[in-house]
Amino acid sequence: MSWTDLQAESGHTIAELYDDERFAEFSATYEDMLFDYSRTQMTVAARATLFGMLEDRDFAQKRAAMYGGAKINNTEGRRVLHTALRLPEDAVLDAEGEDIARQVLDSRAACFAFAEDVRSGAYAAAAGSFTDVVNIGIGGSDLGPVLVAEALTAHCDGPRLHFVSNVDGAALTQVFQNCDLSRTLFIIASKSFGTIETMETAKVALARMKSEVADASVHFAALTTKPALAAEQFGIPAERCFGFADWVGGRFSVWSPIGLPLMIGMGTANFSEFLAGAHEIDTHFQSAPLAENLPVLMACVGVWHRNGCGFPTRCVVPYDQRLATLPQYLQQLDMESNGKRVTLDGDEVAVPTSPVVWGSAGTNAQHAYFQMLHQSPTPQPLEFMIAAEPVEEGLEHLQNILIANCFAQNQAFAFGRTEAEAEALMIEDGMDAEEARRLAPHRTFPGNRPSTLLLYRDLTPRTMGRIIALAEARCFTEGVFWGINSFDQWGVELGKVLATGMLPHVEGKFAEDMVNEALSGPLAHLHTL
Amino acid sequence: MSWTDLQAESGHTIAELYDDERFAEFSATYEDMLFDYSRTQMTVAARATLFGMLEDRDFAQKRAAMYGGAKINNTEGRRVLHTALRLPEDAVLDAEGEDIARQVLDSRAACFAFAEDVRSGAYAAAAGSFTDVVNIGIGGSDLGPVLVAEALTAHCDGPRLHFVSNVDGAALTQVFQNCDLSRTLFIIASKSFGTIETMETAKVALARMKSEVADASVHFAALTTKPALAAEQFGIPAERCFGFADWVGGRFSVWSPIGLPLMIGMGTANFSEFLAGAHEIDTHFQSAPLAENLPVLMACVGVWHRNGCGFPTRCVVPYDQRLATLPQYLQQLDMESNGKRVTLDGDEVAVPTSPVVWGSAGTNAQHAYFQMLHQSPTPQPLEFMIAAEPVEEGLEHLQNILIANCFAQNQAFAFGRTEAEAEALMIEDGMDAEEARRLAPHRTFPGNRPSTLLLYRDLTPRTMGRIIALAEARCFTEGVFWGINSFDQWGVELGKVLATGMLPHVEGKFAEDMVNEALSGPLAHLHTL
Repeated sequence: MSWTDLQAESGHTIAELYDDERFAEFSATYEDMLFDYSRTQMTVAARATLFGMLEDRDFAQKRAAMYGGAKINNTEGRRVLHTALRLPEDAVLDAEGEDIARQVLDSRAACFAFAEDVRSGAYAAAAGSFTDVVNIGIGGSDLGPVLVAEALTAHCDGPRLHFVSNVDGAALTQVFQNCDLSRTLFIIASKSFGTIETMETAKVALARMKSEVADASVHFAALTTKPALAAEQFGIPAERCFGFADWVGGRFSVWSPIGLPLMIGMGTANFSEFLAGAHEIDTHFQSAPLAENLPVLMACVGVWHRNGCGFPTRCVVPYDQRLATLPQYLQQLDMESNGKRVTLDGDEVAVPTSPVVWGSAGTNAQHAYFQMLHQSPTPQPLEFMIAAEPVEEGLEHLQNILIANCFAQNQAFAFGRTEAEAEALMIEDGMDAEEARRLAPHRTFPGNRPSTLLLYRDLTPRTMGRIIALAEARCFTEGVFWGINSFDQWGVELGKVLATGMLPHVEGKFAEDMVNEALSGPLAHLHTL
Repeated sequence: MSWTDLQAESGHTIAELYDDERFAEFSATYEDMLFDYSRTQMTVAARATLFGMLEDRDFAQKRAAMYGGAKINNTEGRRVLHTALRLPEDAVLDAEGEDIARQVLDSRAACFAFAEDVRSGAYAAAAGSFTDVVNIGIGGSDLGPVLVAEALTAHCDGPRLHFVSNVDGAALTQVFQNCDLSRTLFIIASKSFGTIETMETAKVALARMKSEVADASVHFAALTTKPALAAEQFGIPAERCFGFADWVGGRFSVWSPIGLPLMIGMGTANFSEFLAGAHEIDTHFQSAPLAENLPVLMACVGVWHRNGCGFPTRCVVPYDQRLATLPQYLQQLDMESNGKRVTLDGDEVAVPTSPVVWGSAGTNAQHAYFQMLHQSPTPQPLEFMIAAEPVEEGLEHLQNILIANCFAQNQAFAFGRTEAEAEALMIEDGMDAEEARRLAPHRTFPGNRPSTLLLYRDLTPRTMGRIIALAEARCFTEGVFWGINSFDQWGVELGKVLATGMLPHVEGKFAEDMVNEALSGPLAHLHTL
């Protein structure tokens, strides 16, 4: 089974493929979630080729190797065990004699105890229990907690959560303005305690807190594997440092102590539900046959669109405002994991790897960029998501509008509207025939633009765990198709090195100098340093 | 000058083109802004071809037609005069005998008077002056105000601003929780007073306000051309309805009464500065020679990347957290304007039109998806932006970090790191030679990935006006290259029609029914309706 076999199956239109049987053939369910990929150009033969490619690539063995703790991250010599972070209490997992399950459960227990102490006020500031929690972290130490906090706002009944990621002080200024600092807890999330953006921001926060309260260190906790640095630089004692192993990659770390702000915000019972949802998907992913395996099917559609049909991007549109940042989360997950140019063995890949992943919440997306997706000559596949039930009580009619829009778009992209139909509609509305003919091309929708649909019952903590774990398992599976290491990120290294080298040249050249140099030319030399 | 001429110029590498003269040759300035496109594969010949194509397309005449009020939106028979919204007080603009300048100035004066009354408390609620303003609008009635409010937070000294766009109630629930409703003003932004999302959300807000205050209508204003509907449905009197002409497209409307929340938030003096910045660019765009014309050059680079080099997307990365939503704003501006499949005459376009526009703030972007942009086999061009001066006082060192990172990425994408260099670096660090050889391909950066840089002094209201107006003028110019109507948006129509038809079938099928139908199949029929 080869890429050529796959490409040979492309070229059919959705309209040509679509019949009454297609929904049953090209959809699958897990509990009360539905994945519908009937409105794509997928064929039975293409799917069989994709399954064959997975077998050729020893997919089942590779999956087992990941879950079993083999060092599949072969450029860093590391296991990949974020899946272990959601193991249930009674689980057993040893890797080369290391009791992984015990490590996970101990770490979880420590975080849970601290989170509940903050919630109850057993751990408090001098001025009283904490009213606000500020997470300072970037990339994987930010995107997951932000996503889940926004998605599960309705379940957050603890201190208010705030997230500061970028280095430029804008977000921190907001925090200083909006929080009662005498009752604010800062969580510094940096595994190495060396991420420059996070450390510089945390230092600004510490300096401010020293001017606000008698004992600033009470207001800090750290998510790090370097407790000595946390003690030295911020006076944070070891019992408020929560670490995690090197087998937790940043973009897979929301299940780890990186989830501490969430544990504080929504409580450990809700966080346990979140973990349980993810673990359900781990079980499903490991046991369901390919044809019924949701993440495998999602990966097959992804690879079909990327390598069978040649689409350079995919657009993720949750019709759910609470998932508005999910596209950015998936953007990191997929593009950092699978945006690679060489295989595990270091050979150049034969086909394109990760597409550009982008998108935003519907219906907002309809009012922003759907124009281009409907009518430009270069369509991109879409991935819709929708809940059957709303979060907000008493607003069911609003949810109905979302659902109707989501289904309508799924249909409109697939089937479009011909020029003759557009012309006839305008004449029906009383337009002059010549004018209708002139306008018809502008009101024509070519259709044959694929979109998938993920339907879930409602956005509970458990559903949220499932949604993220589905994406992770899909990402792993796409990586197996491409034969790459989905778990390193060497591509971020060069920019960091160059930035560090450039900083001394930028310092002291501020404002006037910088602008004057820019406008007169020497800046060119600065940025060739 | 043809597309083939343009494509013939592609294929050079940045490293091959780059020399000491290149920055001077491929950069341009306007006042204290710099546009640097030296780290792209642009050549002198390609640029000459692009300028020639603009001349072939009567660019100067088309630009004059837009500014002069000709009906260049030929599928809706409308003028395109958002540029008139930022005319100075003494300007004169007549279009076919209509005194456009007078209309603009009168409308602006009415908005300014109301905004200052809200700020001063001359217009107030029964409980006192307004502390919070909630804008209810979607698409163009949301993205512009949100962007500018976030960008210019430091200049906002009036009531707090909130924005509710999506229909699902999530954002409205937050507003109900966080605002003192007895002192909250709702602004309903819908030109037609018929946008279903906005009207349904506004109705929920009205119902809530009726239960909170004696006279709810005091708490509402409308941005609409349908004051009769605003009066009938919300009891809003004509003096609190602010309309605008049909020559203001939604995505170009932030300068119009749609900017009312901004006028209230930052005051009319700041808003006037914002308008003045945009007007400066209008003057520059109309008068500067092509080779010195910033928006023209930005458009040339855009078309070069899209049609000369064949890139399907472009990634916008402001190293400025206050511009974090700018990529989404530009996404709408460009993709809705130029995501078209037919020319002004209704013929199919010969080449791809709008790319996918995406991105996010740096350095966050570095920690999210730069991996893929650096190392995947399918790079995409980047557009960086950076301020020389920080907004936050006392945090200059953080701005230096941003600047160093921005310049470093500009360099890293262009020049990369060879496999031999990667290998040598590891051996230098003491790594075993065989291991260094194995890892080198993973740590290689191919480079030759283009990025541009827009540098501005600082993010004032005037700069913000310039930045948006630059993007608008660029968008117009790209539309001229492609020969399309950049000012209609028929592509949003079909989904709306289908959603309206589907709504009755969705209603009454809630929750259990919906999920059960989905899981058992009949949903397929529902969404083929």
